[in-house]
Amino acid sequence: MPEHVYRIIEVAGSSERSTDDAIKNAVARASRTLRQVGWFEVVQTRGHVENGKVAHFQVVLKVGFTLEDDASD
Amino acid sequence: MPEHVYRIIEVAGSSERSTDDAIKNAVARASRTLRQVGWFEVVQTRGHVENGKVAHFQVVLKVGFTLEDDASD
Amino acid sequence: MPEHVYRIIEVAGSSERSTDDAIKNAVARASRTLRQVGWFEVVQTRGHVENGKVAHFQVVLKVGFTLEDDASD
Amino acid sequence: MPEHVYRIIEVAGSSERSTDDAIKNAVARASRTLRQVGWFEVVQTRGHVENGKVAHFQVVLKVGFTLEDDASD
Amino acid sequence: MPEHVYRIIEVAGSSERSTDDAIKNAVARASRTLRQVGWFEVVQTRGHVENGKVAHFQVVLKVGFTLEDDASD
Amino acid sequence: MPEHVYRIIEVAGSSERSTDDAIKNAVARASRTLRQVGWFEVVQTRGHVENGKVAHFQVVLKVGFTLEDDASD
Amino acid sequence: MPEHVYRIIEVAGSSERSTDDAIKNAVARASRTLRQVGWFEVVQTRGHVENGKVAHFQVVLKVGFTLEDDASD
Amino acid sequence: MPEHVYRIIEVAGSSERSTDDAIKNAVARASRTLRQVGWFEVVQTRGHVENGKVAHFQVVLKVGFTLEDDASD
Amino acid sequence: MPEHVYRIIEVAGSSERSTDDAIKNAVARASRTLRQVGWFEVVQTRGHVENGKVAHFQVVLKVGFTLEDDASD
Amino acid sequence: MPEHVYRIIEVAGSSERSTDDAIKNAVARASRTLRQVGWFEVVQTRGHVENGKVAHFQVVLKVGFTLEDDASD
Amino acid sequence: MPEHVYRIIEVAGSSERSTDDAIKNAVARASRTLRQVGWFEVVQTRGHVENGKVAHFQVVLKVGFTLEDDASD
Amino acid sequence: MPEHVYRIIEVAGSSERSTDDAIKNAVARASRTLRQVGWFEVVQTRGHVENGKVAHFQVVLKVGFTLEDDASD
Repeated sequence: MPEHVYRIIEVAGSSERSTDDAIKNAVARASRTLRQVGWFEVVQTRGHVENGKVAHFQVVLKVGFTLEDDASD
Repeated sequence: MPEHVYRIIEVAGSSERSTDDAIKNAVARASRTLRQVGWFEVVQTRGHVENGKVAHFQVVLKVGFTLEDDASD
Repeated sequence: MPEHVYRIIEVAGSSERSTDDAIKNAVARASRTLRQVGWFEVVQTRGHVENGKVAHFQVVLKVGFTLEDDASD
Repeated sequence: MPEHVYRIIEVAGSSERSTDDAIKNAVARASRTLRQVGWFEVVQTRGHVENGKVAHFQVVLKVGFTLEDDASD
Repeated sequence: MPEHVYRIIEVAGSSERSTDDAIKNAVARASRTLRQVGWFEVVQTRGHVENGKVAHFQVVLKVGFTLEDDASD
Repeated sequence: MPEHVYRIIEVAGSSERSTDDAIKNAVARASRTLRQVGWFEVVQTRGHVENGKVAHFQVVLKVGFTLEDDASD
Repeated sequence: MPEHVYRIIEVAGSSERSTDDAIKNAVARASRTLRQVGWFEVVQTRGHVENGKVAHFQVVLKVGFTLEDDASD
Repeated sequence: MPEHVYRIIEVAGSSERSTDDAIKNAVARASRTLRQVGWFEVVQTRGHVENGKVAHFQVVLKVGFTLEDDASD
Repeated sequence: MPEHVYRIIEVAGSSERSTDDAIKNAVARASRTLRQVGWFEVVQTRGHVENGKVAHFQVVLKVGFTLEDDASD
Repeated sequence: MPEHVYRIIEVAGSSERSTDDAIKNAVARASRTLRQVGWFEVVQTRGHVENGKVAHFQVVLKVGFTLEDDASD
Repeated sequence: MPEHVYRIIEVAGSSERSTDDAIKNAVARASRTLRQVGWFEVVQTRGHVENGKVAHFQVVLKVGFTLEDDASD
Repeated sequence: MPEHVYRIIEVAGSSERSTDDAIKNAVARASRTLRQVGWFEVVQTRGHVENGKVAHFQVVLKVGFTLEDDASD
């Protein structure tokens, strides 16, 4: 196995529908500018309430992606 | 911006259907007696098991609501 | 109330569909070999990403089950 | 199972005799004004010292109680 | 020493001036409706940013107050 | 000193009398099926309340025991 | 509400004057290269001591900023 | 109120009888060489097991004591 | 990807030589009775001291292994 | 760089004016009896309330200082 | 002392040889694209197991580096 | 077993060679002035970086030692 190095960043995503959907939104957005995203971990699940109802769910994720040899950090 | 103060309480809700539904139940119940609920944060996700299946999901939430000027605490 | 004792183990389950489904998979598998599973608590929610999309969700659970009198540990 | 909601509050009790007694004092006092107290969890055990001896034990508890349908929060 | 019981609640206060001022605002507001507030502990220090400057500081406090004999909880 | 290996499991015990008694019950039960139990650490102290009184105390313990050479895990 | 995504980074700032000033310095520097900084949270407060006096205060902040549609990560 | 300073140290005590007794032993020993011990907080509760029984309870305490003006640290 | 389930157990290993060697000892022992061990995580690094020197290093690991379809738990 | 060793102790200081002032008081007092104090980290920020106002702020600090070759511990 | 600001990022490195080597790999790779790396802190030590042996060690580090005046973030 | 009491202090050691060596340095230095050091636990592993390489490793340890009957604290 090559001795690779990866970076971990923190992103937050939200959705009016579900917590899983908020995760998918955050992963999709992070993958638009980062190649090689490999995994995520949920570090916080929150949400906003309006008129007594959940207006949207929000998750904070740690996201890991492989550092390619020529990548800036 | 006025220098407002809000309170944070802990509530638990449950649902036979999903964790998101347990969140919605807890938020809706808290909003019945508290005006001005603004946000929630999930602090625990649990559940009960019967006959090898998830019988219901249960979440513990921190819920924040604005203290109005004439509100008792 | 009898003074019963229960054990707590850690299991991880995954699902391509949802976090709730990953929970159900882990609980169902643990219940195949353990009688008397009573509850679970989610201690970690993670997932793998392929081609910019969530490939599967993964949860780590603490699972509690009653120790029967004649059970080995 | 009905989809009930409960609240969790934090109380501290003390006793000159023992930590268990401090727990009992806190639970008894919380139950004077709250119906339906169901469980507690110890989150801190402390105490005061006078003349080189433990003057009293003090515990901080999370206490959970069911929200009845007509209860204010 | 009498075996008194106290409660602990969570409040958040904010200030455009300083974190200490946000603490004072939260303590003053909590003391308007609660007699016998005795201490606080800072559990979170946050703030909002507008146009690259701190617009206000915000603190979350645990606040402890003695339960009087005839107090509702 | 030989380079031995031990395992750590989580068990919960309860008692109507005291937290120390709940610890003793959990340790005694774990020792019925595990030889070589050496130590415990309390990771949670909880209890159930009925009619405003502590109905029983419950502790969750980490329990360590030496793995003998021929033991299954 | 649009389903926006934001990122969270960690920065440390220092000041010879006060902890609040250290926060302001870190926020101002982060805002020089990041548009749309919205909030911060203090995760550590430290400082250096020289000749028995506080030489400077240092804070570590989490800082959140909105990811614009065309931003690289 | 004078602006006093106190120190906090960590001590561990044990007892064959009970956790409360282990606390008392640690406090009494710390008070033999430190004047002005004022409080303690339990940070860990452990114990040793011999022949399937609790051989002794052990607690780790944080202990606070006032620094007198002429005290070495 | 099949929706597999794995278990996580806690083991401790020791070595007179190094922390890495203590890790290897614990992993090797766990693998003697568990097929399909896939990963470990270090949760504690400790050691014993004799005559002012480190007598042995000790690590506590979480160890994950795949549950095969016919495995008892 | 020489391979130096330093110690870390815990001290608490208070001030009627501000949290920064409480830090300075604790650092100054620790430096009266300890040479070579190099840094501090705030581990708790608390305070006492009298008549609905903050009577004094209190901080608990970890304080690091270099062990000189001839120092007792 | 100038009032400098630094950033903290999270990187993971691995090595077939040792945990120290995994640290060195991660630090070397981060330093390829970041000037002014000053320190690291280990936040997780893990590894993969193949055929009952440690196949490689993996560490997650927080890495701090000074923000130069003209650096993008 | 006699009901002995021990103290726990925090020390940091460093080494240009390895983390294990940093541990040994800290233990050896603590043992120069403290008789009866019995164990250590690693609570932090850090290091400094110069010119893109690890200049030295640094560990923070909790160190436990038995309080002898006539020892000052």
